[in-house]
Amino acid sequence: MIVTLLTDFGFEDEYVGAMKGVILSINRSAHIIDISHQVPPGDVEQASWRILWSWKFFPEKTVHVIVVDPGVGSKRRILCLDLAGHLFLGPDNGVLSRLTASSRKWRLYEVSNRRYALPSVSHTFHGRDIFAPVAGHLSKGVSPSKLGHRVAAFQRLPFSIPRFYSGRVVGKVISIDHFGNAVTNISAEVLAKCSHFLEKKGRVWIGKKRIGPLRISYAAVRKGAGVALIGSRGLLEVAVNGGSAASLFKVSVGDEVQVRG
Amino acid sequence: MIVTLLTDFGFEDEYVGAMKGVILSINRSAHIIDISHQVPPGDVEQASWRILWSWKFFPEKTVHVIVVDPGVGSKRRILCLDLAGHLFLGPDNGVLSRLTASSRKWRLYEVSNRRYALPSVSHTFHGRDIFAPVAGHLSKGVSPSKLGHRVAAFQRLPFSIPRFYSGRVVGKVISIDHFGNAVTNISAEVLAKCSHFLEKKGRVWIGKKRIGPLRISYAAVRKGAGVALIGSRGLLEVAVNGGSAASLFKVSVGDEVQVRG
Amino acid sequence: MIVTLLTDFGFEDEYVGAMKGVILSINRSAHIIDISHQVPPGDVEQASWRILWSWKFFPEKTVHVIVVDPGVGSKRRILCLDLAGHLFLGPDNGVLSRLTASSRKWRLYEVSNRRYALPSVSHTFHGRDIFAPVAGHLSKGVSPSKLGHRVAAFQRLPFSIPRFYSGRVVGKVISIDHFGNAVTNISAEVLAKCSHFLEKKGRVWIGKKRIGPLRISYAAVRKGAGVALIGSRGLLEVAVNGGSAASLFKVSVGDEVQVRG
Repeated sequence: MIVTLLTDFGFEDEYVGAMKGVILSINRSAHIIDISHQVPPGDVEQASWRILWSWKFFPEKTVHVIVVDPGVGSKRRILCLDLAGHLFLGPDNGVLSRLTASSRKWRLYEVSNRRYALPSVSHTFHGRDIFAPVAGHLSKGVSPSKLGHRVAAFQRLPFSIPRFYSGRVVGKVISIDHFGNAVTNISAEVLAKCSHFLEKKGRVWIGKKRIGPLRISYAAVRKGAGVALIGSRGLLEVAVNGGSAASLFKVSVGDEVQVRG
Repeated sequence: MIVTLLTDFGFEDEYVGAMKGVILSINRSAHIIDISHQVPPGDVEQASWRILWSWKFFPEKTVHVIVVDPGVGSKRRILCLDLAGHLFLGPDNGVLSRLTASSRKWRLYEVSNRRYALPSVSHTFHGRDIFAPVAGHLSKGVSPSKLGHRVAAFQRLPFSIPRFYSGRVVGKVISIDHFGNAVTNISAEVLAKCSHFLEKKGRVWIGKKRIGPLRISYAAVRKGAGVALIGSRGLLEVAVNGGSAASLFKVSVGDEVQVRG
Repeated sequence: MIVTLLTDFGFEDEYVGAMKGVILSINRSAHIIDISHQVPPGDVEQASWRILWSWKFFPEKTVHVIVVDPGVGSKRRILCLDLAGHLFLGPDNGVLSRLTASSRKWRLYEVSNRRYALPSVSHTFHGRDIFAPVAGHLSKGVSPSKLGHRVAAFQRLPFSIPRFYSGRVVGKVISIDHFGNAVTNISAEVLAKCSHFLEKKGRVWIGKKRIGPLRISYAAVRKGAGVALIGSRGLLEVAVNGGSAASLFKVSVGDEVQVRG
């Protein structure tokens, strides 16, 4: 059974290795896959996007473990989400809330049964002491209902939705990737509704900076030039062909993005 | 069988991949887990902590490969340590010496039998040419006694032990993690001996900087404030809630830490 | 079956994880190994060296996936190379061309059969939508001839060959590793032809900077001193014992290297 890991632990320390050791001590045949361990420390929002953008590419019955958990050691709960045949473990800080937004059928459990945790639980590393052993047991077939009571209400992150004006759509940058591409909250579906944007007349702005035209691929503009396109997540991205939009245009998460007809 | 890797090779090059290829060429069913490849280059001390803090979380019979080896190509020996049902491969530069300190029953072998190395051994990459193939064979069940003679004396790293004074304990920072938390050599057991520290009166200093109080978890102080707590290794750690103690307080490995009653 | 991944995707995002999810959705028993995901963005040259220097350490039938693909979404082809019992998937941008240079027997196929891609293919992430599913199918035994037509001509990277003068060999730096060692295009075989270099009289220069003597290992010079040696790739490397040649001597890829008798 596959177990994916998404954390802000980095790779400098033994943290990720220790989690994997715990999982394998419980289920020797677990197949552990790293989504990322370089979520910016404590950045629940970025973790919520990364799991939203990757889980569907894994087979059913995958157990996804998300440990971006600035509240570790406090009273925050740990949750197990059962959705579309996948299981997700995460702290109750909103990191799971993008997932339930895109589906209607799901069940949520509090992870409170200490039977599935390590015998000794530290105050600072629930990834190793609770998340990992629980994931090991889930990957062996333990039902999420064994972990604790069902819960209905849980912490949600705010969703920001693009606004429409005559002749323009206004959204914002929600993530910046390794290449410096800026991902926005403007989806292909939203843009499709305003078909005039797609007839090669659309121009994209971030704040007061004109980035470039709407195109199909990076290579549609000359090297070093700005371009906007529908990226691999089905969302509008702002990019620079052969470069970094984040550095060239000094784009940050939260910046306003406009598509003008 | 599980093989863990702990190196200072980084992930930019093909080094770690080549090691894994060699292991899998010998044992196709080896399950290879990375502890870290971002030990600071040549930092034997930091590697010694990382393996000490992770090996116990793996199942018995795991083969742990540690290649932080500034003396590669010189006459330094390669050692295989058999301890508590685990096997450890490392250069004779002290990197294995924290492990033997915590146990009385162990055996140590020199890795000298070239039969288990690659046919051609480079002068700069024993990780690929000796450590990896030897680990492959060990993970297939080859006995460590086949690798070479037993040895008794080997290189040890100095251990620094906290000192007690009336009303205070003095230790030092031994490692700084990805989050900027500073791990000290003051253990929970040491602190427990001076129970007055734990009655919410303890205050922690690094050099002349007052860090904050002793607490149970990060969240026990306000965001941005310093705190000291017993971390996941059973050692006192200095942290900043939602921040980095290393940057805020400019803490380095080797700095003196005081807990005052 | 083993699938290796070599990309410039980094580990911050969900890109590598999504690729692995796709591969495992097709072949649950694929054993996926990372060569590196930290090739500098778009650096086809560096990717071509990393795969050249690692593939031979993997067992036969390994599928190697190389996605350093600045032309993604343009008309560039995707190729599958069948060489020495290994399979290689890469864009037609030269990244595979070091491999064919060292062998005479190989077959090359265009990857055009969309049957082996994901149902929906984005314009920016062929790694997930084409490379990964094709690799999944290849690792399950699909013949490369099923992917598309055989092709003969493909993009090649220039090879630069060291020049010989009386008393010196002139080459260049082709790669710089994690430790700051500078790898050159001067092979052990080339140096062996000029045996006077190897009799401890050879001196190595980069541009106008005298680096140090030719030696067998790093430890042959004092700490902090420059040295040249034959590294793990069979190529002359310029290094600093316990330090970084790249920072100490300000070496860059492309710099001229001289070995003088």
